[in-house]
Amino acid sequence: LKVLTLNSNPKLAEDIAAHIGTTLGKCTVSKFSDGEVQINIEESVRGCDVYVIQSTCAPVNQHIMELLIMIDALKRASAKSINIVMPYYGYARQDRKARSREPIAAKLVADLIETAGANRVITLDLHAPQIQGFFDIPIDHLQGVPILSDYFEAKQLEDLIIVSPDHGGVTRARRMADRLKAPIGIIDKRRPRPNVAEIMNIIGNIEGKTAILIDDIIDTAGTITLAANALVENGAKEVYACCTHPVLSGPAIERINNSQIKELVITNSIPLPEEKHSDKITALSVAPLIGEAI
Amino acid sequence: LKVLTLNSNPKLAEDIAAHIGTTLGKCTVSKFSDGEVQINIEESVRGCDVYVIQSTCAPVNQHIMELLIMIDALKRASAKSINIVMPYYGYARQDRKARSREPIAAKLVADLIETAGANRVITLDLHAPQIQGFFDIPIDHLQGVPILSDYFEAKQLEDLIIVSPDHGGVTRARRMADRLKAPIGIIDKRRPRPNVAEIMNIIGNIEGKTAILIDDIIDTAGTITLAANALVENGAKEVYACCTHPVLSGPAIERINNSQIKELVITNSIPLPEEKHSDKITALSVAPLIGEAI
Ligand SMILES: Nc1ncnc2c1ncn2[C@@H]1O[C@H](COP(=O)(O)O)[C@@H](O)[C@H]1O
Ligand SMILES: Nc1ncnc2c1ncn2[C@@H]1O[C@H](COP(=O)(O)O)[C@@H](O)[C@H]1O
Repeated sequence: LKVLTLNSNPKLAEDIAAHIGTTLGKCTVSKFSDGEVQINIEESVRGCDVYVIQSTCAPVNQHIMELLIMIDALKRASAKSINIVMPYYGYARQDRKARSREPIAAKLVADLIETAGANRVITLDLHAPQIQGFFDIPIDHLQGVPILSDYFEAKQLEDLIIVSPDHGGVTRARRMADRLKAPIGIIDKRRPRPNVAEIMNIIGNIEGKTAILIDDIIDTAGTITLAANALVENGAKEVYACCTHPVLSGPAIERINNSQIKELVITNSIPLPEEKHSDKITALSVAPLIGEAI
Repeated sequence: LKVLTLNSNPKLAEDIAAHIGTTLGKCTVSKFSDGEVQINIEESVRGCDVYVIQSTCAPVNQHIMELLIMIDALKRASAKSINIVMPYYGYARQDRKARSREPIAAKLVADLIETAGANRVITLDLHAPQIQGFFDIPIDHLQGVPILSDYFEAKQLEDLIIVSPDHGGVTRARRMADRLKAPIGIIDKRRPRPNVAEIMNIIGNIEGKTAILIDDIIDTAGTITLAANALVENGAKEVYACCTHPVLSGPAIERINNSQIKELVITNSIPLPEEKHSDKITALSVAPLIGEAI
């Protein structure tokens, strides 16, 4: 068994390797002068079960190509099995044709990974669980809810309500609520007429309660910060937020810092770069979870 | 018939469309906040023969993913045929395992393009013509030598010799020499011992002649500028250089400006950005050549 890392998440990869009692295999993943990916695997992988750790977070196209080229190299080096650990699955939100002539990039990525020669995929909180069906190879779909719930449980917060920021996330909120023995709420956004501001209708009784907002991905943080502010305006005592995948692009950090969110709890499926650190953000490690799955 | 362009070479795409008497189809290729490629095809392509123009030059991984996602979108939009025009084929230099555990990225790229759903590929001066065999779909392999030769022929230079900067390029030099009715020369580099500077041995009589160096790709321009300087030191009257694919990464432009090269003739298979313009460089268009092939 060998664990190799690419460039997206080397710290997590080290932690995963440590968790299963090994160290990272020797390889370098760099660039030629023109930007093409150059991969050097510096020890034999012949007959090995190889685990490659790569989140396809930004720069997503770079990270996808690193992954595909690594799979190609391992295949040609006679690895026994090539197991891809993708804590964050990029392009997961392009998972259906919502409009005419849209691509389904999440399916494309699945096809690319299989074509390159992967044998198995381990991933975490896919934006849509249906993406599992885009693969014809085994896929393990891990859940971040237990890690996030355990963190909040340890805080011994009282009068909790778990709130989904949209209809799509209700199942996830339900799972967290079960673990924390709390009721659920839903933010029910609707736009009465085109070009009129959305109305935030809150389903569930939040008066005087401590709300925990949960989502899978927080990207520009527009949805989650508007939801947090609406909860406080409507009588919530305080608002926590959590997600598995901290994409946190564009104005996200500024929005979070300026919002009513008291604390944002994330995982390290995507590493938080230095410039995105904030006193409000707590990152939990998925290394033990992934270590168990390997 | 519809011609669509992605982001690598929109000017060439326009010229190709004009050459075949049409205009570019309406589509926008942009990025979401987190850097994921977003493609919007704004007119029907159902039942159409679609030509997608994209060189996979730098940023290569971005350009490859744009191409694959566009192919996916066209396939799902019921295009009759998806024809890929790749004037420059990125990763072509990773075309074999030269060392253990190396990837063959040029084959991977071919597999990815087929998996996405392309029906035919049109390309120009592959680094190795064997890459044609990496495809199971039809591939048209165009040649830049006639365009480059015609340019030099019009200059009516006398006492020419066509020089290949290495052994790998002799066939190309031979083809240009046939068109210009000139002899060929070869730069025969060898390293007598490890860590000793290479010796540039020139095969062919260059004394008092006008030399034209020809290569397929000029990347950091180390090879071509050393070759040019060696030719002048060894008695050549003047040295021109030419190539099909001006990758021109890193120190390339500085090296060319400081070298004995009198004029460098390139094609627009890769666009020359503003900051790489130089008085020494002349760019020829491959639009007519590609227009004919469509
Ligand atoms: N990287 C991205 N950033 C922002 N929006 C995206 C991204 N990828 C897909 N989308 C859009 O997000 C929507 C899907 O999100 P959802 O409705 O939450 O499943 C679709 O309208 C997509 O066009
Ligand atoms: N993008 C690149 N930039 C520089 N060298 C490369 C690149 N891709 C592959 N190579 C190397 O170039 C050599 C192949 O070039 P050649 O011998 O001219 O076919 C191999 O040693 C490759 O490792």
